[in-house]
Amino acid sequence: MNIEKPSIPKGTRDFSPDKMLKRQYILNTIRSVFEIYGYQPLETPAMENLSVLTGKYGSEGDQLLYKILNSGDFLSGVKENEIRLGSKKITSKIAEKGLRYDLTVPFARYVVMNQHEITFPFKRYQIQPVWRADRPQKGRYREFYQCDADVVGTNSLVCEAEIILMINEVMKKLRMDDFTIKINNRKLLAAITDLIGEHGKEAAFCVAIDKLDKIGKIKVEEELVENGFSETAIKKLSPFFNLKGLNKEIIHQLESILANSQIGKEGIDELKQVFEFLANYNSDDRQAVLDITLARGLSYYTGVIMEVSVNNSSLTSSIAGGGRYDNLTGVFGLEGVSGVGFSFGVDRIYDVLEDLDLFPQEYEASTKVLLLNFDPGSFKESLKVLSALRAAQIKSEIYPDAVKIKKQMNYANKKGVSFVLMIGENELKEGKFQLKNMTTGEQQKLTLSQLLKYLSN
Amino acid sequence: MNIEKPSIPKGTRDFSPDKMLKRQYILNTIRSVFEIYGYQPLETPAMENLSVLTGKYGSEGDQLLYKILNSGDFLSGVKENEIRLGSKKITSKIAEKGLRYDLTVPFARYVVMNQHEITFPFKRYQIQPVWRADRPQKGRYREFYQCDADVVGTNSLVCEAEIILMINEVMKKLRMDDFTIKINNRKLLAAITDLIGEHGKEAAFCVAIDKLDKIGKIKVEEELVENGFSETAIKKLSPFFNLKGLNKEIIHQLESILANSQIGKEGIDELKQVFEFLANYNSDDRQAVLDITLARGLSYYTGVIMEVSVNNSSLTSSIAGGGRYDNLTGVFGLEGVSGVGFSFGVDRIYDVLEDLDLFPQEYEASTKVLLLNFDPGSFKESLKVLSALRAAQIKSEIYPDAVKIKKQMNYANKKGVSFVLMIGENELKEGKFQLKNMTTGEQQKLTLSQLLKYLSN
Repeated sequence: MNIEKPSIPKGTRDFSPDKMLKRQYILNTIRSVFEIYGYQPLETPAMENLSVLTGKYGSEGDQLLYKILNSGDFLSGVKENEIRLGSKKITSKIAEKGLRYDLTVPFARYVVMNQHEITFPFKRYQIQPVWRADRPQKGRYREFYQCDADVVGTNSLVCEAEIILMINEVMKKLRMDDFTIKINNRKLLAAITDLIGEHGKEAAFCVAIDKLDKIGKIKVEEELVENGFSETAIKKLSPFFNLKGLNKEIIHQLESILANSQIGKEGIDELKQVFEFLANYNSDDRQAVLDITLARGLSYYTGVIMEVSVNNSSLTSSIAGGGRYDNLTGVFGLEGVSGVGFSFGVDRIYDVLEDLDLFPQEYEASTKVLLLNFDPGSFKESLKVLSALRAAQIKSEIYPDAVKIKKQMNYANKKGVSFVLMIGENELKEGKFQLKNMTTGEQQKLTLSQLLKYLSN
Repeated sequence: MNIEKPSIPKGTRDFSPDKMLKRQYILNTIRSVFEIYGYQPLETPAMENLSVLTGKYGSEGDQLLYKILNSGDFLSGVKENEIRLGSKKITSKIAEKGLRYDLTVPFARYVVMNQHEITFPFKRYQIQPVWRADRPQKGRYREFYQCDADVVGTNSLVCEAEIILMINEVMKKLRMDDFTIKINNRKLLAAITDLIGEHGKEAAFCVAIDKLDKIGKIKVEEELVENGFSETAIKKLSPFFNLKGLNKEIIHQLESILANSQIGKEGIDELKQVFEFLANYNSDDRQAVLDITLARGLSYYTGVIMEVSVNNSSLTSSIAGGGRYDNLTGVFGLEGVSGVGFSFGVDRIYDVLEDLDLFPQEYEASTKVLLLNFDPGSFKESLKVLSALRAAQIKSEIYPDAVKIKKQMNYANKKGVSFVLMIGENELKEGKFQLKNMTTGEQQKLTLSQLLKYLSN
């Protein structure tokens, strides 16, 4: 047999147990917060019909969709002259399914398909991998997890306020203390586009200023010019880049600048309402900071938008974000279902926690006790003890082979086991077992009931 | 825009919150047992290189692999005359990646790629979906979860014994009390094949008798004849179908029948050792029942094999199974890594629990309290109460819109909320809130601190 060295596709990863335990710590934290706030889990298939996915992510997104070759004789329906037209022309004939690109479009598809069974407002969270045929680079993968929570079927701004509370709670639980939540409203961006005389160009405006942090003001202005914004418009825009101060100061300024804009007034009122709700919750959480240059890339946002970044990490990109959309399900024929959602970037959070050394030392899922294997006789007797430990819900195992103790200790160390338990002939006679703490090196002799009591804490 | 009614691919499923909660109950139960026994989590990518997957599942399996179209101009490397040769010939040129078909081959691939970092024995569990382009039918899907635990790098039969203990524990926790664990050893099947004069035909023998439960003895014998087994061999085989009795009685009979077979003796000794270990664990768990006709379909098993089925459900197929393999990683160039593994069928367990009505009434993840929305003033005041509930880790939410109470109560019912809390003007004045138990209809007035105490239990 010709044996090739096995490999995994570029941009994908194996998650070994040590990484999995850290990832589970992050995901369990996020999941518990979602659930405390009344969100419920949903899962959708990895494969979606391409008719569902195509056209939802712009032409660039369509290029990045992974397409699944039809089963069987996929060429049977393709004529020879069609093949000559090239890859693009025959793709839709030989591939009907694709891998999901995000969790938002499948969610919208789910809501439309199940609209008569769902009780609105529908609060769901979804934690699943997505796939993008992107160029792999540091921190960007072709398979990665998204972690979304959305509520659809209500216009209430209490949902926006709760998103800010949930972000605060996740950040607190993960011990990322130094962070900023930026908040803005797409309606203000629309009002500003109107005010500078470029009505209707809100989309291009958002795409450009979304890059402000990365490329700076001058390049943003250049991009706007390229997109047909006039010099006058650019000049009128300038003061908005410099709006600074407390939220209420910025709001005060905006109220005068956008006094004649209906949509601007709406945008301001919505933000004020969110801030008021946050005060009502009586929380001492971090306030969201109004930043009029926050735009978020996605085209479907229509109201309040939010983004979170960690201040004290060298990894500066945002680790969570979201916003309100008026008509996510419209593309599938269901109009008028307003919703608001947000998403945590698990990989980015993982990197930040590593960078700031914030992962807790002990992971729930690691084995607590390893029983050493001395000789066949003691081994058999040890199994009773092992049964008792497990019955007490203590994660425990016995080294299966009678190899040198050094090798067994090495196994315990590598696996991050907290204690090793030594049960040899003498211990069995005495009815007391040596328990060694692998962190402190401390040893003590305990009877079985003492052992169970000690390890259950 | 041309709006199509959206759909999902045949053989795939959305898991709505009610189904998700039940699935999480099953998966969390299995996961907790794996962890109590010292197994640690692993995840591998959904996409694997086709060079890793192809040829591992037989020619039928290769047909069922989902293949992913190469990104970009996938036809660029394909010559026109190659295209004329048809789908089969060009598949490998236009698709280099596929979706994983099971969790075993990716695990073997992982072990080989990381052999120098892994500390053996390596105990891993893996809970992820797999994909097969199978014909969809009742209970058979194109995307479904597998739930595997394997330990590699040890020959110790204590691992087999622990698998039987884990199965017992999962079944007990899921309240499936009436089940049978069958056990056998591939070595006995090899010995029998020798004894009936068909040395070397063990594989065909296993495939045929694996179907005994489904198609009966006569059809199995027909299949064996078709595969070149002689009439004499079939006759000699007959007594084995009738071996019955307690494990030790069967073993006693086998010891005399297979007295001259080295591999038969090994197989018997291994089973005796597993039974002895089980006795050492001092567990009162269900014994595994030795069934000499248990074969398991998979080709890589070489030692002890096991299978679990539920007796009191109309769904008779097995819900878990596994066995020992001598050389799973050999196909990737790493020889001599013996291991043993088993797998729970989540979908089958789900169906059995539904069939026997064994899902617990209360699901952890459902919202515990819904605060009703009476009027804007009370609503704002209610948010403080909501904050206090959540700070006490009580899953709670407020109805976001001021709609009719009947509609809000309907929402609470549909979502399976345990309590609704009424906070109107009067309640705020009094400092006591009405709590209604949605199951019993019982109402009581409680202060905030009484409420927190009551709901925390």
